[in-house]
Order: sequence, then structure tokens, then C-alpha cells
Amino acid sequence: MPGNDPILLTPGPLSTAPQTREAMLRDWGSWDAAFNRMTRSVCADLVKIVHGENDYVCVPLQGSGTLVPRQGCVLVPNNGAYCARLIRILQRMGIAYVELPLNEDEPVSPAAIEDAFNLDSRITHVAQVHLETSAGLLNPLDDIAAVCQRHGKSLIVDAMSSFGALPIDLRRGGIDALISASGKCLEGVPGMGFVIVRRSVLERSEGRSPSLALDLYDQYVYMEKTTQWRFTPPTHVVAALRQALDQFFAQGGQAARGARYTQNCAALVSGMKALGFEPFLKRDVQAPVIVTFYAPRDPAWNFANFYAAVREAGYVLYPGKLTQVDTFRVGCIGAIDADELRKAVAAIDRTLKWLGIRVK
Amino acid sequence: MPGNDPILLTPGPLSTAPQTREAMLRDWGSWDAAFNRMTRSVCADLVKIVHGENDYVCVPLQGSGTLVPRQGCVLVPNNGAYCARLIRILQRMGIAYVELPLNEDEPVSPAAIEDAFNLDSRITHVAQVHLETSAGLLNPLDDIAAVCQRHGKSLIVDAMSSFGALPIDLRRGGIDALISASGKCLEGVPGMGFVIVRRSVLERSEGRSPSLALDLYDQYVYMEKTTQWRFTPPTHVVAALRQALDQFFAQGGQAARGARYTQNCAALVSGMKALGFEPFLKRDVQAPVIVTFYAPRDPAWNFANFYAAVREAGYVLYPGKLTQVDTFRVGCIGAIDADELRKAVAAIDRTLKWLGIRVK
Repeated sequence: MPGNDPILLTPGPLSTAPQTREAMLRDWGSWDAAFNRMTRSVCADLVKIVHGENDYVCVPLQGSGTLVPRQGCVLVPNNGAYCARLIRILQRMGIAYVELPLNEDEPVSPAAIEDAFNLDSRITHVAQVHLETSAGLLNPLDDIAAVCQRHGKSLIVDAMSSFGALPIDLRRGGIDALISASGKCLEGVPGMGFVIVRRSVLERSEGRSPSLALDLYDQYVYMEKTTQWRFTPPTHVVAALRQALDQFFAQGGQAARGARYTQNCAALVSGMKALGFEPFLKRDVQAPVIVTFYAPRDPAWNFANFYAAVREAGYVLYPGKLTQVDTFRVGCIGAIDADELRKAVAAIDRTLKWLGIRVK
Repeated sequence: MPGNDPILLTPGPLSTAPQTREAMLRDWGSWDAAFNRMTRSVCADLVKIVHGENDYVCVPLQGSGTLVPRQGCVLVPNNGAYCARLIRILQRMGIAYVELPLNEDEPVSPAAIEDAFNLDSRITHVAQVHLETSAGLLNPLDDIAAVCQRHGKSLIVDAMSSFGALPIDLRRGGIDALISASGKCLEGVPGMGFVIVRRSVLERSEGRSPSLALDLYDQYVYMEKTTQWRFTPPTHVVAALRQALDQFFAQGGQAARGARYTQNCAALVSGMKALGFEPFLKRDVQAPVIVTFYAPRDPAWNFANFYAAVREAGYVLYPGKLTQVDTFRVGCIGAIDADELRKAVAAIDRTLKWLGIRVK
């Protein structure tokens, strides 16, 4: 029964509200006006969340790489696995890039980005991960956008784990595109990506994508003309996202979502500290989305066993993704509150005792 | 209420069984072993449906273009919009192709493919749409596969609308890859593509995809190593497909599904003929999936009005997709039986009378 399923303390897929999942009990025709109106309203609401109504459009799609011209050169500040993936994408597409290497606990400094611009005049774009989920690290997006704007560089933001939870205001300028997805902090189910992009930038990107499936411009032009998706859309996922957005706004929008996640994160961190666990990140760079903890040094520690036992107790944790140190991660997003995280900490406590693991 | 929703007489999204949609009421962690076992069982069952257990693997993914090397040349028999899309994909990727142009009611002839091979020795691959949904046209896959095998050409089949409904037997040889998706004749919900590919062909395709997101090889190798998807999977769509496959096998597999669709198609065609409608295709090339009918010549005919009125009566139809003649389409797939199609014909009859449209 759904009621007995474990709570997902993971960075998406995450625990969704019952109403969101119930929205998938209906079949939708993709040519049908009601479905197309729903798609349109979803896209409009996504733009609204980041205050981009005037100059930005939302293109629903999986993945992206369309916006950088063949002769462009992309600066990629790298403090985790998702930044490294951006580099892999650029390598695969044969687009030039400059890496700005950082430690996994070190946010990007706007001054370092400025230095890179001054050092290498080939740079035309910056690909910035807002919230590096590898450690849970917050990069200072507003300051990065200001530097890009001052130097006339085009900023593309991977806002996968931050969209809806952390404030992003496109009216401040400096951001050309934001990429996120249905199954993260908007608390929809996974299966639909979207890009919110400055209309003027999108309109210059015709024919740039080597992939028809991932071509943002083509999807946008077709949708404008027909109101429909180019290819069969993930109808039930779109319907669940529509329902999730209704709840998002009814609950108070980004400010309320951010506040709830911040309370969740505080309950998690203080509870885990009381058990002896140490967060990997300093407090001021820890985003309230996912927290990395050092693994206990006890030889009895084994993440797979610990994971299985905590799952049995009703909570799904997440493995660490850092290259140097042994860690594990606990998400604090999804349709859950601080009380649920306190219960999760209690379950972790019981599990440790049962497995005979000493935290420090 | 779901119970009052219209029946989708469309080629996917289509009407699914309640149990399939109810499978989406659960959240799944993508790192979780239970979810990964479900993915694995889905992939194994997909291969089983087309008898590819020995030499083929199933890679879940959206889209594809990975399997053709840069210096390859692809023959594309073209009898509809989905064939034309294959050409667009090849153009976008910069891969050479040869078009074999056909009429929209004309199946590919194996002799014409053989002629193309003899005429142009550059051809290395054939990209063949099995069931051209533009008109509902069946291409003779077995004979095409035999020609490709005889000439040593690699055959890639778009089996989007045929997989699960029409017999495909990989043991016969000649097919290197089959592409289909969750939301068609398997009666899952839309949102997951998959490619069933000969293992030896896949293993030679490392690094061929210019897109990381669409890289079949990379997805395969990662899944083999970790049991997980490379990127966040559409968890609820996968769960619905698992449930839909359970029903597929319980109902008797491809033979039973094909028989039910054949009965649906016969009920639809005979009912519509009794109303005066003429199918666009000859009977022997009509696949039992979607039927194209000539639009009435009555000046009172307007598809948008007709569509809206039939939808009001509980059935969602599909517009025509032919370039030369005015048509509309009615699907006969999904979790519906011949009785439902007889009811749909009755609703169409009432609607025509109500709108004052004479069919002939």
C-alpha cells in the first residue's frame, strides 16, 4: 500500500503529495486542447516563479545544449559531479570550454570568474550549477550573474535542485537560461525537464542543436504555432506537475517552500549532530536541500547495510558522491516537514544502535 | 472524475487500464534496489516480447541516433511523416542518407530496397518505420529484414506503434535494433523510450553519439555496472510500464494483443463504412492500430468542430497527417475492446446528424 512506502530523503525523485500522484489517474490526449492548455499554464507558472514574465519563455524538454553556438567557449566552474557532467556534455558536443577547478566544499567566487574572463578572451558563456548536489553546496548565483552581466557573457544556470526552493529573480539581469525539472523542489514526479530562456537568446539559436530531440528552438517554435509538443509528451507527468504547482502556489510559493526546507534542514542537522555526525559543509555554504555527513570511522560501518536497515525503518537515504572522503547524504526536500526529519533522525539512531555502530 | 474522462482513440497517449495508472500512486527512490530491480525486469520483458533474449539487450532512453557511425550512410524508405522525421534527424546529425520516396498508401517493397543497395554501395544501414502512423500503413518488416541480412546491411526499426501489437521475431535475423516506447501498444503511460539492440552492435557504438543524454552505449554500460539509470529516471512511468507489462503477459502477450486490436479495427472499419466513410488504405496494408478515413466532402464538414463534438460525446479522435488529401484518423489501440469502438462509431453517427454533416 502506498501508505506504507518509505519516505524518500533523496534529492529527487522525492516524496510527493498524494494529490500530485492522484493527478496521474487520468489519461490525456496529447492533441487535446485541455492537455495543451495545461502544458501552457505549467510553462507560464514556471516562468512566474523566477519573475521572467517579460523577457523569458519556458520550453519543456529533456536535456539541453542548444544555446551555445559551435564557435562559443564555455567557462565551467567545477565543484562537483554535476559540474563535471556539464564538461562531459561540452566535450561530447565538441564545444570549447575552460574549467575553473574548485574543491567540493568551495563555492565559486565571482572574483575567480572575473579573473577567468580577463585571462581568456575566448570565453563567451558560463555554465553554472546553482546548487551542487554532490555535496549540497550553494554557489552565489546573484554575484555570478552580476559579473557575467558586467562582462557581457551569457550565463546558463543548472538550477536542477534549487528551482522553486531558493530565490532566483530573472529581473536582476545577467541570466540567459535556467534549466530544471519536474521532480525536484517543485515536488512533481520525475520525467519532464524545462528550460526558461531569454526569448531573444532562444530566437538566435535556430539550427544550433545537433540533436532534433533536444532542440529547444524547434520545440518552442512548434509549440507557439500549434500549442502542442512536437513529440508525444509525458502526459501524466505534466498533469502531476500541474497539480504540484497548484500546491506550490497555495502554500505560499518559493518563499514558503524555501522556509519549510530550511526548517527541515535545521531539524536534520541538529538531530544528526546530537547523534555525533558532522556535516561536510560549513553552515554558510550549505543549501537547505541535501546534507552530506561524514561516515562514521567505526569499522562496523558499511553504507549498504546502514541504507538497507534505515529503509526498513521507513526512510530512503542517499549515498555520498564525493571523490576524497567517505560520506553519505540525507535530503530534506519533498512533501515532508521538520517533524518527519526528526523521526528520520530517530530511526537512524535506532538503526545505529541495532547495527552496533559508534558514530565517533 | 477519471470515470467520466473521454476514451482516447489516438495512437498514444491512449486509454490505459486503471491498474496501470494506480501503479503511479507510489513514489520510488532511483537509487533504491527495488526500483532498479523493477527497471531490470521491465527491460528483460521487453526483450522477451520480440524473442531477443540471446543476442539483444534493452536500453531505456529517450530518442536515439547512436548506432550509425559518422561515416555511415542510411537508406530511408519514406511513406509518411515519421519516415520524414528520421531524415530530419539524420540531416541534423550530419549523417549521409539516401531517400527511397513512396506514396503514403504504398508499403516499402523489398525489391526496391534491394535495387537501392545495388545502385548505391555507400549504403550501410536501413532506417525502417514498421508501422507508418501517418496513414496507419504496415510495411513488410520480415521481408525487409531478409533483404538487409542477405546484403549485410544493418537494419534499425522504428517499431513505435507496432511493438507488442504486431509479431516481431528477432530470432529470424536481419534486425540490429528496434525502437519503441512505453505509451503505445504496451498500454503504459508515455514518458519512456527504449531501444532493443543486438549486444555486439551496441558494444561497437562507444562514443558515437554527439549527445550525452541520448547515448545508448553510455546508458547501457552504466546500468550494467550499477543497475541504475545514469540520470534521474521517470520513476512513476517505469512503475506504470511494469504494471502494464504484467497485464500484457496475463492477457496472452503479443498474439492476444494483436487479436484484440484486429477485432477493434474490424469493428471500427465496418461501423464507419456503414456510416459511409471510406478508409484511405487498402485492407491488406492496413495495420490494426490506427485507421485513416477520407473526410466527408460536405461543405458543413470542419474537423475542429467535429472533433470537439465527438469529444463531448466521450471519444478523442486524431487529425489526419497526410499531405495530399483531407482525412482524419481513429485509433483502435489502448485498454479498450471492440464494443467500445462500436460505441464510438455510434457517437460519431449521432454527432454527424447533430452537426448536419452528410458523409457522402
